[in-house]
Amino acid sequence: GSRLQISTDQLIAGVHIDPAARPGQMARKLLRRSLSDLAAAGAQPWAVLWNVAAPYDKGLAWMKRLARAFVEEASLFGMSVVGGDLSNADQVVLSCTVIGLEGRVRTPGRGGARAGHRLLVTGRLGAAVSSGRHLLPEPRLTEGRLLAESYRASAMIDLSDGLSEDLQRMCAASACGAVVELSKLPLARCLRHQEDGWSSALGEGEDYELLVALRPAEAKRALVDPVLTGAGIHEIGRIVGFNGRRGDKRIVWTVDGENMDIRIAGWEHQWK
Amino acid sequence: GSRLQISTDQLIAGVHIDPAARPGQMARKLLRRSLSDLAAAGAQPWAVLWNVAAPYDKGLAWMKRLARAFVEEASLFGMSVVGGDLSNADQVVLSCTVIGLEGRVRTPGRGGARAGHRLLVTGRLGAAVSSGRHLLPEPRLTEGRLLAESYRASAMIDLSDGLSEDLQRMCAASACGAVVELSKLPLARCLRHQEDGWSSALGEGEDYELLVALRPAEAKRALVDPVLTGAGIHEIGRIVGFNGRRGDKRIVWTVDGENMDIRIAGWEHQWK
Repeated sequence: GSRLQISTDQLIAGVHIDPAARPGQMARKLLRRSLSDLAAAGAQPWAVLWNVAAPYDKGLAWMKRLARAFVEEASLFGMSVVGGDLSNADQVVLSCTVIGLEGRVRTPGRGGARAGHRLLVTGRLGAAVSSGRHLLPEPRLTEGRLLAESYRASAMIDLSDGLSEDLQRMCAASACGAVVELSKLPLARCLRHQEDGWSSALGEGEDYELLVALRPAEAKRALVDPVLTGAGIHEIGRIVGFNGRRGDKRIVWTVDGENMDIRIAGWEHQWK
Repeated sequence: GSRLQISTDQLIAGVHIDPAARPGQMARKLLRRSLSDLAAAGAQPWAVLWNVAAPYDKGLAWMKRLARAFVEEASLFGMSVVGGDLSNADQVVLSCTVIGLEGRVRTPGRGGARAGHRLLVTGRLGAAVSSGRHLLPEPRLTEGRLLAESYRASAMIDLSDGLSEDLQRMCAASACGAVVELSKLPLARCLRHQEDGWSSALGEGEDYELLVALRPAEAKRALVDPVLTGAGIHEIGRIVGFNGRRGDKRIVWTVDGENMDIRIAGWEHQWK
């Protein structure tokens, strides 16, 4: 009787993870990345299917370790593994499709943010790759569900490609813009230099924290919610109108209220 | 309000398809192979998610042709493309997850065949690769649904890995054995020599026809059903008991009722 949320994702050795990573690390990162999508939909994990393409010379022991880790990890998150395929390839290419159940409230999506709504993020941002955190992301399932159901999130997205890219997506889907105050970004503790930290948080990705737009009254309540403050919850900016005039920027970054041009680290999509 | 049937599969260049195949051919074979799984479940196609891993040097035009063909093919079968991911890899690795709706009758599965049930196949078998038929398999969706709903199939499977392998799977799941009369196999018309034809039908796979176990009275009716005879429907043997004694064979192949040892062409799984 529940509505479904479905998401699919890939983990490719040499692209998303070091080819020398252990099979268990690959399996866990594969699943957790997809669970982060369910978290952003406020959905509860239910079932998963996966595909493995890998060179035969990885051997059966490697394959068994991969499969055991995947099944254990799925069970940790209360999911059944309901299907899969195994085949030969030159390179390790993993994919999985997760199916979640929507909660009582319809999932927020990315398109509901409106001018005046507040922008909040969970946890801390930046240095996910250099710190190794990217190997075992913590999908914000409880927080996502809470933000959707108890705080009626108007838009929500998980930060997989960096705040800059993912905020762009939310704003484009919502036909609006945003102003973000960089000094309010909750940075990973290992990031000493603020500007490096901002660049990492905005551009590097793999944080798998949630970015959410909330109505001002809901934002005020969410900022003192004990579960959310336990995970970390910070207001970093607000949604503004955007009329798409040439030369206007959809997203304005400020430091102490002053506009700032910031060089964003990161990754360029090469499908040209 | 419907129960779901979900299946996932991969198509890897150099393993399941010639790396020189056109992107449209890859997209169509990818989707149709998975639809064949839904056909065997008597399910109606509903939604699909897919993943593409491919070298950047394939270029954007190739990628657009692949995507256009996939979306068109999905729409041809009444499916919505509800998700996907695109990434870089050394080799083309495609995967898709199809979601179907079960019909009025619970899906047959592979485990319901019992001694005395008749074994039937749709269409014609063999030479799928050499004839090029494997590039555009015809998922037996109408026939699968009919066999499940109107003839209460006790077990059903699509022939992707060859009759020998797939019949083994059905018999193992049903804890029974089978006797197949080779002279009754409906062979592809291009197969002139019977023994080569049998070897091809048993071992080569990629036929994507349905193998179904039916109660004798239902089998009799199904063999004269106008829709099924239009696609081709033939009785090729029967389910028998199997007690698993050492030296006993789960599947016995006969020619004019005489046991026959047949060399089966095919493909050995190399995960050892």
